[in-house]
Amino acid sequence: MSEKRPHVVIIGAGFGGIKAALLLARENVDVTLIDRNNFHLFQPLLYQISTSMLSIDEIAYPTRAFFRKYKNVRFMLAHVQGFDVENKEVITPYKRVKYDYLVLAAGSTTNYFGMNKLSYSTYGMKTLREAIHIRNHVLHMFERAERETDPEIRKRMLTFVCVGGGPTGIEEAGSLSELVYIAMKDEYHGLDLNDVSIILIEATDKVLPMMPEDLRKETVRVLRSKKVDVRLNTQVVDCDENTLTLKDGTTIATNTVIWAAGVKAVPVIEKLGSEVDRAGRVIVKKTLQVPDHPEIFAIGDCAHLEQNGRPLATIAPVATQGSVVCVENIKKLIKGQTDLKEFVYHDVGSMATIGRGQAVMFKGSLKMKGFFAWCAWMLIHLMRLAGTHTNITVALKWGWNLLSGIRLGRIITNIPDNRNEQ
Amino acid sequence: MSEKRPHVVIIGAGFGGIKAALLLARENVDVTLIDRNNFHLFQPLLYQISTSMLSIDEIAYPTRAFFRKYKNVRFMLAHVQGFDVENKEVITPYKRVKYDYLVLAAGSTTNYFGMNKLSYSTYGMKTLREAIHIRNHVLHMFERAERETDPEIRKRMLTFVCVGGGPTGIEEAGSLSELVYIAMKDEYHGLDLNDVSIILIEATDKVLPMMPEDLRKETVRVLRSKKVDVRLNTQVVDCDENTLTLKDGTTIATNTVIWAAGVKAVPVIEKLGSEVDRAGRVIVKKTLQVPDHPEIFAIGDCAHLEQNGRPLATIAPVATQGSVVCVENIKKLIKGQTDLKEFVYHDVGSMATIGRGQAVMFKGSLKMKGFFAWCAWMLIHLMRLAGTHTNITVALKWGWNLLSGIRLGRIITNIPDNRNEQ
Repeated sequence: MSEKRPHVVIIGAGFGGIKAALLLARENVDVTLIDRNNFHLFQPLLYQISTSMLSIDEIAYPTRAFFRKYKNVRFMLAHVQGFDVENKEVITPYKRVKYDYLVLAAGSTTNYFGMNKLSYSTYGMKTLREAIHIRNHVLHMFERAERETDPEIRKRMLTFVCVGGGPTGIEEAGSLSELVYIAMKDEYHGLDLNDVSIILIEATDKVLPMMPEDLRKETVRVLRSKKVDVRLNTQVVDCDENTLTLKDGTTIATNTVIWAAGVKAVPVIEKLGSEVDRAGRVIVKKTLQVPDHPEIFAIGDCAHLEQNGRPLATIAPVATQGSVVCVENIKKLIKGQTDLKEFVYHDVGSMATIGRGQAVMFKGSLKMKGFFAWCAWMLIHLMRLAGTHTNITVALKWGWNLLSGIRLGRIITNIPDNRNEQ
Repeated sequence: MSEKRPHVVIIGAGFGGIKAALLLARENVDVTLIDRNNFHLFQPLLYQISTSMLSIDEIAYPTRAFFRKYKNVRFMLAHVQGFDVENKEVITPYKRVKYDYLVLAAGSTTNYFGMNKLSYSTYGMKTLREAIHIRNHVLHMFERAERETDPEIRKRMLTFVCVGGGPTGIEEAGSLSELVYIAMKDEYHGLDLNDVSIILIEATDKVLPMMPEDLRKETVRVLRSKKVDVRLNTQVVDCDENTLTLKDGTTIATNTVIWAAGVKAVPVIEKLGSEVDRAGRVIVKKTLQVPDHPEIFAIGDCAHLEQNGRPLATIAPVATQGSVVCVENIKKLIKGQTDLKEFVYHDVGSMATIGRGQAVMFKGSLKMKGFFAWCAWMLIHLMRLAGTHTNITVALKWGWNLLSGIRLGRIITNIPDNRNEQ
């Protein structure tokens, strides 16, 4: 690296961070991209890892492979611990990394809304490791249930609860249903699949709040047709190893609660010392700069910016569109220009799959559901996946699964601890 | 299950166990197949997991998926702890499983030849978890080396030693070389790949002892052309976290020793109480029965049977051919017949890849090397992999890798402990 060129440090190799680094790679700057993992994760498909549909390397792509041609981009595997904004340094366990410009694209983590106990007794699904953990656990529950003689314990092992009616909860519940009732249906000769319950719990009166009412109703209808017990207006107040407790006092005996009820910015963002919202997101100016720190930008899930009176959603397009404006503004600052661009998010619509061949999508006045929405969902996700080879294998897997219901990912890579084993 | 039908218990879902269970599934018997994992592992390709070539679900296949149509076959996920041969019971942590006939197909594990310390300081490569562990560790060594400032420590982190000149050691060393010098060569902008050493250590004077001399020489030549430092007549006597010690007193500074120097039967086999050989394999009669226990059979890696004055090799074809004879003999015993069949192994030849487009194969008077041997190797392995979808994706990956050198599996799923981190 040249000592004279401006040094941009980007934290996070998600959608926003990778895009920003690729845009900056072509400029006369040095870039250091820091992430706690060595891969870029395609988070929207994480639920397909947890439900044994896709392979790990189909949704995780080695971060360094993006930057083979760009010698001015360095990658650093590290967990950022904090910031020294006075000296313009990022603190990692190995060294302090000096920056001229800092881009915070560190993403989000599971939000338990203050119920910290739930972080131990439920399964989050924001990281690859968490998704693998869910996969191992769900498959193991079936193995244990088949050899369990107490019918009550067996039913508890076969009760799977997803909390949260957003896209993640919907997709997880739908995919779990197909895993159980289609992919595995002839494989547990000693189990009665009537003992299985898949429950989706949502605190408000609607699933997929960004969708119009008819698509929300369609979503609930399809889920119920897949034997998912959808419970709206239902709030979780407590959870331990064997029991989920609801606000009305009823309990559900279960060993598996997947918590997809909300996200918050990763905790390190608060260490910046700048104002954050209730979800820990740093409040940025319209130029995506952090107040009082024109050299620090925040984009994507860890930034809070309001548009039309509401904060922007924590979705990939907000992060990637933000990274473009962020890079433009950094280039202007380097040139000494002061007419920075303000970020305006252009809605690309929203979509969710409820199962193979079933999806809902919505953009402006366009509404789609059913098989064609699923095809559109599939195409859009395939286009965005990194790597041509992955496009082919994922397309094959989805097509194959549509026809035969087979899921090849049902591999327990780590037998979980046998808590509750009788 | 019917109470009256004979109950055959098979331990191990490897090549021998799966084949035996599939053959017995069509008979008027009940079968219980017990394995400590929920998948059948295609062990010959394990090195391609450890070197980031293939995905986990391409070489691991859910065991239960083999037996969807066969309600008389039950699978049980359990680690067998011992036997009560008087009462004809297999002991598991959950229950004792009664058998009329028992098939031991439990396979083998790494043999440290009494140097137990090495089981802690080196990496075995017999299980899926071990291969994943090697992959994570090797990738992590590169990440750590790039941020390491001490050149000596950096070289130690980038020194990779494979011990054992059999197919596993050869294939691991060759594949590791391509991972480093082809797939990752443009990705570590802060590393000089001249600091990398890949060393193959073999105690005897030859690699691939089952091969004729010209193919052995070809193997060494190809490995050396791939910058693998092949050291014959070299014996390991000690290894700790940072240093491998050889018999002549020289040491190699390394954090990565992959131990592929030998195998022995899994330890539970000794608990049978029957005579075993030095590698813990139970000595069987030519009918594959365990002496004094006509109802107990042993096949594959955990059985010792001599043919032409030498014990049969621990390779897949011996296990699958053995399972056929074993099942025939069980059927005869059920019918009350006493003219049991004796097992004669028919050599199918042997082969090894040394890298993409490079292999050696040998059968009788047939010898092949180079690209055509590699194509033959590829076809034979594809044919034997379970599942059509897997055949397609693996063929695509191998072809793609041949052309572009890309390896998509470079995902660190678990950051190893930072021992030695400065």
